[in-house]
Amino acid sequence: MSHWSRYQTHLIRHEDLGISLDVSRMHFDDAFPEKMAGECARAMADMKALEAGGLANPDEGRMVGHYWLRAAHLAPTAELKAGIEKDLAEVKAFAAGVHDGRIAPPGGGKFTRLLVIGIGGSALGPQLVTEALVEADAPVKTHFFDNTDPDGMKRQLGVIGTDLKHTLTVVISKSGETAETRNGMLEAEAAYTAAGLNFAKHAAAVTGPDSLLDRHAAAQGWLHRFPMTDWVGGRTSVMSVVGLVPAAIQGVDLDQFLAGAADVDAKTRLLPVRENISMMMALMWHAAGNGRGEKDLVVLPYKDRLLLMSKYLQQLLMESLGKELDLDGKTVHQGIAVYGNKGSTDQHAYVQQLRDGVNNFFVTFIEVREAAKVPMLEVEPGVTAGDYLQGFLRGTRKALFESGRQSMTLSIPQVDAYYLGALIAVYERAVGFYASLVNINAYHQPGVQAGKKAAGAFLTLLAQVRDALTKAGAEQTADDLATAAGLEAEDVYHALTHLAANDARTTRTAGVNPAADRFVRKYRAGLRHLAGGNGGA
Amino acid sequence: MSHWSRYQTHLIRHEDLGISLDVSRMHFDDAFPEKMAGECARAMADMKALEAGGLANPDEGRMVGHYWLRAAHLAPTAELKAGIEKDLAEVKAFAAGVHDGRIAPPGGGKFTRLLVIGIGGSALGPQLVTEALVEADAPVKTHFFDNTDPDGMKRQLGVIGTDLKHTLTVVISKSGETAETRNGMLEAEAAYTAAGLNFAKHAAAVTGPDSLLDRHAAAQGWLHRFPMTDWVGGRTSVMSVVGLVPAAIQGVDLDQFLAGAADVDAKTRLLPVRENISMMMALMWHAAGNGRGEKDLVVLPYKDRLLLMSKYLQQLLMESLGKELDLDGKTVHQGIAVYGNKGSTDQHAYVQQLRDGVNNFFVTFIEVREAAKVPMLEVEPGVTAGDYLQGFLRGTRKALFESGRQSMTLSIPQVDAYYLGALIAVYERAVGFYASLVNINAYHQPGVQAGKKAAGAFLTLLAQVRDALTKAGAEQTADDLATAAGLEAEDVYHALTHLAANDARTTRTAGVNPAADRFVRKYRAGLRHLAGGNGGA
Repeated sequence: MSHWSRYQTHLIRHEDLGISLDVSRMHFDDAFPEKMAGECARAMADMKALEAGGLANPDEGRMVGHYWLRAAHLAPTAELKAGIEKDLAEVKAFAAGVHDGRIAPPGGGKFTRLLVIGIGGSALGPQLVTEALVEADAPVKTHFFDNTDPDGMKRQLGVIGTDLKHTLTVVISKSGETAETRNGMLEAEAAYTAAGLNFAKHAAAVTGPDSLLDRHAAAQGWLHRFPMTDWVGGRTSVMSVVGLVPAAIQGVDLDQFLAGAADVDAKTRLLPVRENISMMMALMWHAAGNGRGEKDLVVLPYKDRLLLMSKYLQQLLMESLGKELDLDGKTVHQGIAVYGNKGSTDQHAYVQQLRDGVNNFFVTFIEVREAAKVPMLEVEPGVTAGDYLQGFLRGTRKALFESGRQSMTLSIPQVDAYYLGALIAVYERAVGFYASLVNINAYHQPGVQAGKKAAGAFLTLLAQVRDALTKAGAEQTADDLATAAGLEAEDVYHALTHLAANDARTTRTAGVNPAADRFVRKYRAGLRHLAGGNGGA
Repeated sequence: MSHWSRYQTHLIRHEDLGISLDVSRMHFDDAFPEKMAGECARAMADMKALEAGGLANPDEGRMVGHYWLRAAHLAPTAELKAGIEKDLAEVKAFAAGVHDGRIAPPGGGKFTRLLVIGIGGSALGPQLVTEALVEADAPVKTHFFDNTDPDGMKRQLGVIGTDLKHTLTVVISKSGETAETRNGMLEAEAAYTAAGLNFAKHAAAVTGPDSLLDRHAAAQGWLHRFPMTDWVGGRTSVMSVVGLVPAAIQGVDLDQFLAGAADVDAKTRLLPVRENISMMMALMWHAAGNGRGEKDLVVLPYKDRLLLMSKYLQQLLMESLGKELDLDGKTVHQGIAVYGNKGSTDQHAYVQQLRDGVNNFFVTFIEVREAAKVPMLEVEPGVTAGDYLQGFLRGTRKALFESGRQSMTLSIPQVDAYYLGALIAVYERAVGFYASLVNINAYHQPGVQAGKKAAGAFLTLLAQVRDALTKAGAEQTADDLATAAGLEAEDVYHALTHLAANDARTTRTAGVNPAADRFVRKYRAGLRHLAGGNGGA
């Protein structure tokens, strides 16, 4: 078959949406989709059950409802439908209030900056939307706390500067107990207080009803509390209040955003495999990685606005698909590693390896057909920078193919609220389908608990070590303290070096090796009230 | 061996620098470094020859001199040494002039914004430095054009707004012929002109002497031209004028930046394997991926400032190591895939997969010992956000190890100019060593030519197709035009769809499949002067 006829045979295009998927440069047997017909049918049935309100997340006994957020009439109960509509109306009303000044800082003026505090799904979705859709003339300029790095937060506050008095802070956490977000909230509150501002009158919460955060916000009288539901997971929450609140405040057209996703859902819910973009994508992931994630997925949007798409998909795919057990409890160690930034920039970085090096990946090009909204400069007679961008996409696709590297190309007409919603919907359903193809639960994340637990254990240990070191009153080695307290010496050592670097009372004298390092913690008169100064003193 | 004693056995620490590397959670045989002694000795010898000025890039017949940039006395000739010192002095003088207003915009005031135009090494290094080191109160606020996306450039210009009159633009391109950078320069120039400003008086060039860009800048009378040399490659150019010019203008301490790298170089140049951080790192990459890149490298700095480190290393490793042929001409398809963002943020994204999913990676944690420069808030009694950050690092390292996933931890005391320089130097030499271990040329990038050539071919084809379509005067299919012109129909089709989306005169009528799509290009009165409107008319 010629390239041209393979291209046509395997092109899925939805003329009415302007979206297409070209899988002609993937290596798969033409009969593969038919061979997988049984698995595909099961995936369609699984998705149907999910959308009907089944407990699609069996381990946690939860419904999975992100598809209802853009088509409330599909929600399985009238109550859920009403809730979705009410939430959307509330978000719009709140944003309108911010824009017209009815919701305003107590010191006067309007809110001109937005600080979003969240992590994981509660940051990446809002970050993607901001990067893709928000212009310099938006009603607010947006900043993020998405970690528990005190220095990182200080830097964001440094950028905001005296504008803090015109800054609205939105804290996003379903449980209200995510440590990074809680810490971010406390750091923000302290900054407002230090500036003589009343944090509560600058703050809104997006959280589960009656969560710790919800009760805290209610008690303090925050501007608003938006309810999160347990049937929307973090990585698919960008069309819930999590994503909609920051988007609306930044002036993004929510109706278009939701409509783009709803229109893609309508297609990918019904169409047979050969015409279904999300199913074909899932099949290609399967074909490329033998259903075991043997190839990484490199995401290359040729459009600056979509820079965070790879990071967003990294979360969506890896957290959904990276699982130890399948639905039958069998150990499978599934997943697909995802990385990428943008074209043609990445051609000057790692495309060297893609073309010549280890062949452990397949590429998804994301093509945006319209290069710019406005007339473009001619950089040569008859040639624009946008023509070059397209040339590099086509050139790289061809060069990779010639050296036996696989790629698919997803095309959208432009990047706006509608098409960003559409893109997200394509991938959300592809992930759900793929999970069914390989028989895993895409909607839980059991593996992240271990790290959190171990982190909690470290904090407990840190306090123990600090107390013991303070009590000892003289130089100690890690082994001294570990033996006395029945702890692991290496753990104690890491706690000690952390103290030595961050607690002004603790000093370290280096020995020939870690076991010979000696630590001491002393009360020192005149020391300012430093971190760790209370707990163990 | 207990964890504690394995930790100590395999810890390399340089007390005087405060840097350490812990490889105790990598899976390798204790005897592995000794087993590789021959390869390591060769790698040391190769590096010695390189630093002495040998033609370490044999394919291009070039010296590789980035180590001299921070230790000019090591340069193989007095002339090279003098050049390095002169360049550094010139950069400092220029930056001082910008800061004190001797070098100022013609319309008055100081330069308060910096627009850096470059791609690949000419953007990533400056971006890394900006993200890691530059504060909100820096002398200038910095923006980047790092692609040929006209919409992306318009957005950056939108952020700069009327401050363009106080914006200094630095164009970075060794050959002066990199299309993306050339296009960025033209777009910037057009924006200055449209604002009634004289671009030349706002512009400086960093480029090879007598390059196209150099001659253009000289002819136009730009503010300054900084010379690039052919013995510094793009991905190791951050300590050449490429990185130093933007860094100095932003107020970064160049001497500290260079000193950090020089101090690491001094250690890693001489020390034996067991005490050599860069060599041990290279050995670990080899052990993890069997010297064939079988595992991806996930980079996880627990520090917001180092967010771009993974992207920087993605370029440094993948472009250096992703090679088809070894030095003997044997087909090897080498490389190591690199990705990552930052901790603890990524724990809420893809660490689920790292812990439970496909085990196709190893992690490098980057630990920054000091959490913040200023006293920290206590988010709980005796606990800071920085304690949490450390807890998450330790917790994730432990959780990954418990599920059989490998990691190493590189620790630095803080992120400042000195330690950023040091970090970069650790990795630069590790890459050089690893290339020797697997017998490849780390200093060329032959694979990127194919994509560039194919892109050029696309632009030629685009002009041909537009001309042919204009001449035809009536509806054409891709096959019509391809047959007439002897071109590949699929290529023609991609050119046609690009025209339909970007050239206001071209319209597309969809058929049942791509072959049935019909295109027509007509002169339309009243159309504004649009992209592509000249070339084919």
